Amino acid sequence: MCWKAGKALQRSAFRPRRSIELISFTSEEPTRFGIGCLGSRLMAGTLDPSKTDQLTDRDGISLAQARTGAGFNGSLADVRLTKDTYSAFVELHIEQGPILEARNIQIGAVTAIAAPSTLRIRIDGEGGHAGAVLMPGRRDAFLGAAEIALAVEAAVKSTGAIDTVGTVGVCEVSPGAVNSIPNHVRIEVDVRDIDLQRRDAVLTRIAHTCREVAERRKLEVRTEILNADAPATCDERIVGTIIEACKEHGLSYDRMTSRAYHDSLFLSRVAPTAMIFIPSRSGFSHRPDEYSSPEAIAQGALVLAETLARLSA
Amino acid sequence: MCWKAGKALQRSAFRPRRSIELISFTSEEPTRFGIGCLGSRLMAGTLDPSKTDQLTDRDGISLAQARTGAGFNGSLADVRLTKDTYSAFVELHIEQGPILEARNIQIGAVTAIAAPSTLRIRIDGEGGHAGAVLMPGRRDAFLGAAEIALAVEAAVKSTGAIDTVGTVGVCEVSPGAVNSIPNHVRIEVDVRDIDLQRRDAVLTRIAHTCREVAERRKLEVRTEILNADAPATCDERIVGTIIEACKEHGLSYDRMTSRAYHDSLFLSRVAPTAMIFIPSRSGFSHRPDEYSSPEAIAQGALVLAETLARLSA
Repeated sequence: MCWKAGKALQRSAFRPRRSIELISFTSEEPTRFGIGCLGSRLMAGTLDPSKTDQLTDRDGISLAQARTGAGFNGSLADVRLTKDTYSAFVELHIEQGPILEARNIQIGAVTAIAAPSTLRIRIDGEGGHAGAVLMPGRRDAFLGAAEIALAVEAAVKSTGAIDTVGTVGVCEVSPGAVNSIPNHVRIEVDVRDIDLQRRDAVLTRIAHTCREVAERRKLEVRTEILNADAPATCDERIVGTIIEACKEHGLSYDRMTSRAYHDSLFLSRVAPTAMIFIPSRSGFSHRPDEYSSPEAIAQGALVLAETLARLSA
Repeated sequence: MCWKAGKALQRSAFRPRRSIELISFTSEEPTRFGIGCLGSRLMAGTLDPSKTDQLTDRDGISLAQARTGAGFNGSLADVRLTKDTYSAFVELHIEQGPILEARNIQIGAVTAIAAPSTLRIRIDGEGGHAGAVLMPGRRDAFLGAAEIALAVEAAVKSTGAIDTVGTVGVCEVSPGAVNSIPNHVRIEVDVRDIDLQRRDAVLTRIAHTCREVAERRKLEVRTEILNADAPATCDERIVGTIIEACKEHGLSYDRMTSRAYHDSLFLSRVAPTAMIFIPSRSGFSHRPDEYSSPEAIAQGALVLAETLARLSA
């Protein structure tokens, strides 16, 4: 659940001096092509348009094929913005974490967005009959994947920093039958931190484990970095305006870091950017019981409108 | 690749005194409903027909629904054989292992079939956003599955017996997105041995690990034994007849154990049974490059025909 606004929500009472635009990005959440925020990445020029068209989903269908099939024939190169297109970009979002609710705060003024990175790891071993191939001769791709997944957890925890997180959210096993030794496994790994150097140290440790597991288990392990973005710092003028808007309407607020990443992470490359967070119940997100109350949504919309009005005045 | 024959392949030259029947089993290899050899299990009475109809595939479709959809409306109870139906059952199969080829032997006379067992393990944790949920609060179902998979390997290797094998061939992760913490994982485990006590000790160790992982990672781990069959000993009279058939036609042979399981494992409950093996190239099986030469297939068919003729004389 999210709204984006490039100085959106026109309120006639304010008679803005500058124009306000509402941007609707595509493919922020779905990772069908292995990478989120496709729309804002392309608008910010952080992806090569022709390489992006060649990204494939798990069935081998390219983004270009999917776009054409859905009736979109334009060039991805045409969506790129220049640095003077917008004087400010503001995004309203649920927190996706537990902090606002736990501290009973109504609005989060986001000052920084954590740096995400995504790895795709392909592990090739040797298949065979689960009964007939004896253990000493095995090159089981899934056991290699299991070791790498546990190593991701260990590497993330080893930083000692609460802001380092890592997840193996995708694991696809081939041929995927109970009586067949796995010969191919694909896992996808998400590692984030608000500190770029610390996050990259985790990636280095994961790469080391992949090499070690490959050698010991006689597997082929190929690692592909799908994205490894730098963190974003929000524009202090816009953060200040969000805080003024909260004060204006008597809403409690605090400055905070976004651990999830958003279209704002990429728009911040081409425009001064900040984000407004509202509480998520129990911090739940990316699951069916993700929920924010209608009151919280209304308060977020009010702060967004007030912020945009002030920025446009 | 396999043929089954209940005293099949009538050869007029032999004028058999007893009738020969060819049995075509269904669902030996496919494990769509989580269990192989459905046909022979039902014929041997080792499965409850009404419970079997209620087995479901990964999409929740029951065997009863799938049968009806394919136009099969009979009762599964009707296929059960009695112990006096057949005086002998002989199955011709590829070895699915490397022994015959490596030792340059043309025919294997199978004297015992290893005892297979299948576990389905469901692991429930808590999902959430891969960026926003911090590591200390996580209950990641996939990391639990990874530990259990590695524990299966360790338990199997700990017996010290070359005949103990174990495999995690299925791992399905939900929701299966790179930016979501896995909240549910299903793995399927295959453990086999020619020694029932040793195999069951491995199952006990796996169950212990499941409890330990569940407690330490605060996961719910449910283990379901889909099948845990006893090994089969082949009928010495039929094994002897297979060897006589090899001698008659000048083919090299040896007595051997079947590490894979077959319809014969179940038919052995209701009829004296033995198997004939032919070499598999490089021992490969359950993979696209599984191969036995036309000459080996012809030799196997010849030994089967000679064996059946002698048993029917």
